Formats: sequence, C-alpha cells, structure tokens
Amino acid sequence: MKKGRLEAFSDGVLAIIITIMVLELKVPHTADLGALVHLLPVFFSYLLSFVYVGIYWNNHHHMIYLVERINGAVLWANHNLLFWLSLIPFVTAWIGENSFSKWPVFCYGCILLICGISYYILARTLVKHTGENSALAVAIGKDYKGILSIILYTIGITVSYFNAVGGMVVYVLVALIWLVPDKRIERRLTHSETKG
Amino acid sequence: MKKGRLEAFSDGVLAIIITIMVLELKVPHTADLGALVHLLPVFFSYLLSFVYVGIYWNNHHHMIYLVERINGAVLWANHNLLFWLSLIPFVTAWIGENSFSKWPVFCYGCILLICGISYYILARTLVKHTGENSALAVAIGKDYKGILSIILYTIGITVSYFNAVGGMVVYVLVALIWLVPDKRIERRLTHSETKG
Amino acid sequence: MKKGRLEAFSDGVLAIIITIMVLELKVPHTADLGALVHLLPVFFSYLLSFVYVGIYWNNHHHMIYLVERINGAVLWANHNLLFWLSLIPFVTAWIGENSFSKWPVFCYGCILLICGISYYILARTLVKHTGENSALAVAIGKDYKGILSIILYTIGITVSYFNAVGGMVVYVLVALIWLVPDKRIERRLTHSETKG
Amino acid sequence: MKKGRLEAFSDGVLAIIITIMVLELKVPHTADLGALVHLLPVFFSYLLSFVYVGIYWNNHHHMIYLVERINGAVLWANHNLLFWLSLIPFVTAWIGENSFSKWPVFCYGCILLICGISYYILARTLVKHTGENSALAVAIGKDYKGILSIILYTIGITVSYFNAVGGMVVYVLVALIWLVPDKRIERRLTHSETKG
Repeated sequence: MKKGRLEAFSDGVLAIIITIMVLELKVPHTADLGALVHLLPVFFSYLLSFVYVGIYWNNHHHMIYLVERINGAVLWANHNLLFWLSLIPFVTAWIGENSFSKWPVFCYGCILLICGISYYILARTLVKHTGENSALAVAIGKDYKGILSIILYTIGITVSYFNAVGGMVVYVLVALIWLVPDKRIERRLTHSETKG
Repeated sequence: MKKGRLEAFSDGVLAIIITIMVLELKVPHTADLGALVHLLPVFFSYLLSFVYVGIYWNNHHHMIYLVERINGAVLWANHNLLFWLSLIPFVTAWIGENSFSKWPVFCYGCILLICGISYYILARTLVKHTGENSALAVAIGKDYKGILSIILYTIGITVSYFNAVGGMVVYVLVALIWLVPDKRIERRLTHSETKG
Repeated sequence: MKKGRLEAFSDGVLAIIITIMVLELKVPHTADLGALVHLLPVFFSYLLSFVYVGIYWNNHHHMIYLVERINGAVLWANHNLLFWLSLIPFVTAWIGENSFSKWPVFCYGCILLICGISYYILARTLVKHTGENSALAVAIGKDYKGILSIILYTIGITVSYFNAVGGMVVYVLVALIWLVPDKRIERRLTHSETKG
Repeated sequence: MKKGRLEAFSDGVLAIIITIMVLELKVPHTADLGALVHLLPVFFSYLLSFVYVGIYWNNHHHMIYLVERINGAVLWANHNLLFWLSLIPFVTAWIGENSFSKWPVFCYGCILLICGISYYILARTLVKHTGENSALAVAIGKDYKGILSIILYTIGITVSYFNAVGGMVVYVLVALIWLVPDKRIERRLTHSETKG
C-alpha cells in the first residue's frame, strides 16, 4: 500500500494534539498583567510539549519519507504511537494545573517513555517490512539516539520521584538532544536524492 | 470524480474524532496518583473507542484504496458514515462519566451497530459504482466479517440490557476480530500491485 | 497558482467545523435514557447543520474540481466563505440550547443566507478568473439552485420571525433540495473525463 | 526533502487555530437578540484574528509555493512560527473577555509582533536554503512590507499602552495592508508559470 493517507492522518492527529494543548491556557477573567504570571507554569509545560510533538512530527516525517510502501502492521504500530502521543496534552495540563508537582511530572515522563518505545516499535516494524538493507534501515542504523532517550526518560522519571523540577530538567535535556535534526537520516536523504 | 479530497476530508474528520475523545480525560485538580484511579473508566472507554476509530480508518483506507473514481452517492454514503462515527466521542464520554452503566453501554453498542451498517452501505454504494467485477467487489467478497460484526453488535446490545460489563466484553471481542488486518483486501492489494 | 493547498486548508477547516458541533452534545451526568430526551433539540440541530456543512463541502469539492488554477482573490473569497461557515456551530448550539426559540432560529437563517451569498461570490470570483467559457462557468450556468436557496433562506428568516418551527421547516427544505447532488456539474465532470 | 508534509501539517495547525477561536463565542443561555450584543467585542476580535491567520496562511502558501525542497532548519523555523500563531486564540479570547482593555490589547500586539518576526526568520531560513538567486529570494526582495508591519506592530503596542482602542486601530491597519495580496510573489508565480 502507498503511504499517502498514513501521512495525512498522522499529520491531522499531530496537528490537533499540538493545538488542543493551547486550550489549557485558560483566559484570565481580569485584564491585568499579573493574571499572566499565574499562567507561566502552564505556558512552560505547553512550550515543552509543543517542542516534543514537533520533534515527533519531524522524526516521523523523516522516517516515513524513506519508506516506499507500508502494510497493515505498520498502520497499527502508527496508531499505537498516535494513541500515546494523544495523552501528552493530558499530562501536560496536569503538570500546568499543579505547577510541577511530583506525580504529574512522574507521569509526564512515563508517557514520554512509552511514546519513545512506541516510536521504536514503529521503526522496527517499518524496517521489518522494508528489509534490513533498505534506505530506512541504513539510515536508522543502531539508533543510539532513540536508545539514549529511553534511558534518559527512565532516569528523569526516577529523579522526578525525589525532585520534580530535577525530572523536568532531564526531559528538557532529551528535547534539546532531538532539536538537533537527525543528521543520519537527513544525510541519507540528500545522498539518495543526489544519486536519484 | 477523483477520490483525493474524499480521503483528505475523511482523514480530517476521523483525526478530530479520535483526538477530541482525549478531552474527556479531565485533568485532576489534585496532584496525587489516586486522582488517576477515578479516570480509569474514562481511560478504558477512550482506549476502546480509539481502537474502533482506528479500525474504521484502516478499513476505510483499504476500501477507498481499491477505488479509482467516486460519485455523488458515494460522497453522501461517506458523510453518513462520518456522522455516526462523530457520535462515538459522545457515547464514549457517557460511558466514562457513568463507569459502565447500563444505558450508556447500550447506546454505545447502538452507535457501533449503526456505524457498522453505514460502513456496509458505503461499501455497497462503492461496489454499485465500480461494478461487481471490480477489484473492490472481489476483495470485499461476501463480507462475512462485516456481517458477523453486525450480528455481534446486536448480541452485545442485548447482553448490555441485562449486564453492562457483559455487553462491553462483546464490543471488545468485535474490536479484536478487526484488529487482525483485512487479509482479503491486503492480499488483493499486494496481488494487484505485483501485477501492475 | 495550483489549488492543492486551498483544497487541503478548506478540508481541514470544514472537518473541524463539522466535528466541533458534536461537542455541544453535552454528556448527561445521569445514566438513564430520559437524559437523552433533553438532548433531542441539540441532536436535531446538529444533524441539520452536519448536512448543511456536508452540502457545502460537496459543492465546494465539485466547484474547485473544475478549476485548474486560482489567484489571490479566490483565496480571500474562500476565506470569506469559511469565516461565515465557522459561525454555523455557534448558531447551531444557540438553537439547541434554547429548543428552537425565535431569535436563534432567525439568526441561524441569517448565517445560512450569508453563507449562500459568500458561496455565490466565490463562484463568481472563480468564473472571473477562469473565464466565461471555462468548464466551471458552463457547469454553473445560471445557478438557479443557488439563487433559489437565497430566496428560500430569506423566506425562512421572515417566517421564523413569526413562527420559529416554520422557519426550521424552510431550512430543512433547502437542505433537501441540495441533498440531490448537483447534476449539472456531475454530468459535466463525467463528460469532460470521458473526452479526456 | 520534499515540502508536501510541511504544507499538510501547517494547513492542519492553521485550520485548527482559525477554528478553535470560534469556540470563544460562548452560546448565550437566553434566546433574545440582546444576548448577542454582549458578544460583539468577542465577535470583532474573532474577525480580526481570523483575518490575521488567513493572511499568514496566504503568505505561507505563496512562500512555500516557490520553494522546491526544504531541510531540517526550515522545519524548526516553521514550528516556531506555528507556536506563536497558536497563541493568537489565547490573546484573542483575552481581548474579547475584557472588551479591549489595555493589557490584553498590549499582549495581542506583542504576539502579532513575534509572529511577524518568526515569519521573517522562516523567510530568511528558506532563502538561505534555496540561495540568494532563487525564485523565492527574488520574489521576496527587500521585504518592505514585512519590515513595515514589524514597525507598525511596535507602534501599535506603544499606542495601546496609552489607549487600547488606538492600538487596535493600528493592528487593523496592518491587516488591511496585507489584505492586498502580495503582488510581488503573485507576479513572480504567474511569470515563472508562463515561462515553465
């Protein structure tokens, strides 16, 4: 099967996930600047989650870009990833509502961890379908970055149990690692397009 | 007419349906883990409905994939399906709000049943347009799975009148049947693409 | 300019408009069937508006289908139409909230009227861009149906001032007229595709 | 990389941004016309923001249209723009809720200013990627209009500190400047398509 609608559906779901989070920025009933100060935790958690969903969109974009055709298993691995990503607005709002308390930050990390694993499963499912010598398999390689993220999420979750802000720092760190675009795949893209 | 925008519009509506359900996971005002326990019925009903909408998206994807061109009747059969699917978030939220009470579970089954019938009508409308010898008609065949689902929904609705949880079990069962990808169409897809 | 993104953006906006209306179906806090009876006015107004947005999507689909290229004026005529369509959920909810009272029904008709006029402006803008001999211009012809709708909306608005339910009947009537697909354009489509 | 999914994702996010603003038009609980009068500030701020998002969509559409390929830096410049645009519904609602008070109008201008700068950054990132002699670079030219807008936003913000309505007048003025389609790019489009 062609991949067009998988991309379109994923784009739609990710666009909604990234946008409904802004609805948690509840409009203050007063018109003074002080009202905005109370929104700072919500704003910061929104910003971090926006970056995370942006990272997932970019990586999803890069990964599917290298694939020609998909199958039913890929569709479900993709739905699985979208399901866990759809819970990011919930944990984001929970963090914002409670100004970085222990359990919300803990659960935020758990959702990030499950998203990371789900992304890994999607990558494996795609490689299984396209073959170990496909452009995608070569581009992903050993996926050190993906494995590192999963380790860091686990560390962040553990830290958050003792210190919520410490946990958030780890999550921000993982986001920063990914903000650097995936050179492996991008190089591969340029390479294969130059050859083509 | 070409099918591109029918796909894009359906993808958009399904992406929104699948995502607005997560808004029912109301953010707890307290930051303890116990607050999440109260959300378990909402979470489970969200998960089941996510899977159902995912199934519909997959089947819709497979079915339209085999069609070359559509007409006005197909557009309305598709709108009809989308309308009933758009009620899934409502009945899902009703179930979650009342922790699997009788009437919400009963109505959930009714909506699933009407969605199943609407999907069947869409399939028939497409076959009528593409002809009984088209790739789609051959792939769908006698559609035992669709008919079985409609029978099971009816059983589930009846069961839920006496035992709500029993009804839910039947609905989960139907979802599991569909989680197995539609081999008929997928085989057909691979077949026709190999030939092409 | 090509029309691809105009279609994609319009599909997105229309998909959201048609789906957020279902959010007005507020989940009852009780689990009895009687709770649903109170929702009947909301349900009926949702159904009517769903059909109207569906009609606009279909007609928009048919109309843009016949156009090859667009310009800046078309973009704004399209935004104008989308703006007024985006108010349909508001008036729909107002009707549902007040069980078909006079002013909500009156305003519903006004929005439908302005949408009808906006659609007419979009059609004229497209014809001006593509030329009076274009496939679109021929397909639209004198646009009796569009003019008839505008007359009927005006009648419905007037009737609703004296009898709200009477006004709704007129709006339902206009919807029924459009439920019949636009044979002019569909014939044209088939015709031009056969030639092509 | 090809630009298809960047366009689709941006269309999705912009479609949602433009549509969720209408949710701020809270349905009145009474059915009299007077209830609508209270909504006029909300309606007017919605209208202005709809026009602004429409302008951004048009300009985004024109700009990406001239680009053949994108890279990772473009993706993030685009995410950055979308993030700031996603705050428009928030400041719009804040203005509407407080009927054009000083600080909401002030902040509205700040968000518009940051959006303007983000758009400028996206344009620069694209030109850096496509080269100073690319169709895009020539079409954008010195971007007087973009720079003028940024100056006017700054003036509007300053004015709003002393007179909120005065600030709004400036913002409306900037919108009017952009309502005139970007002739530079449109001429370029027609030109390059005629040559092609």
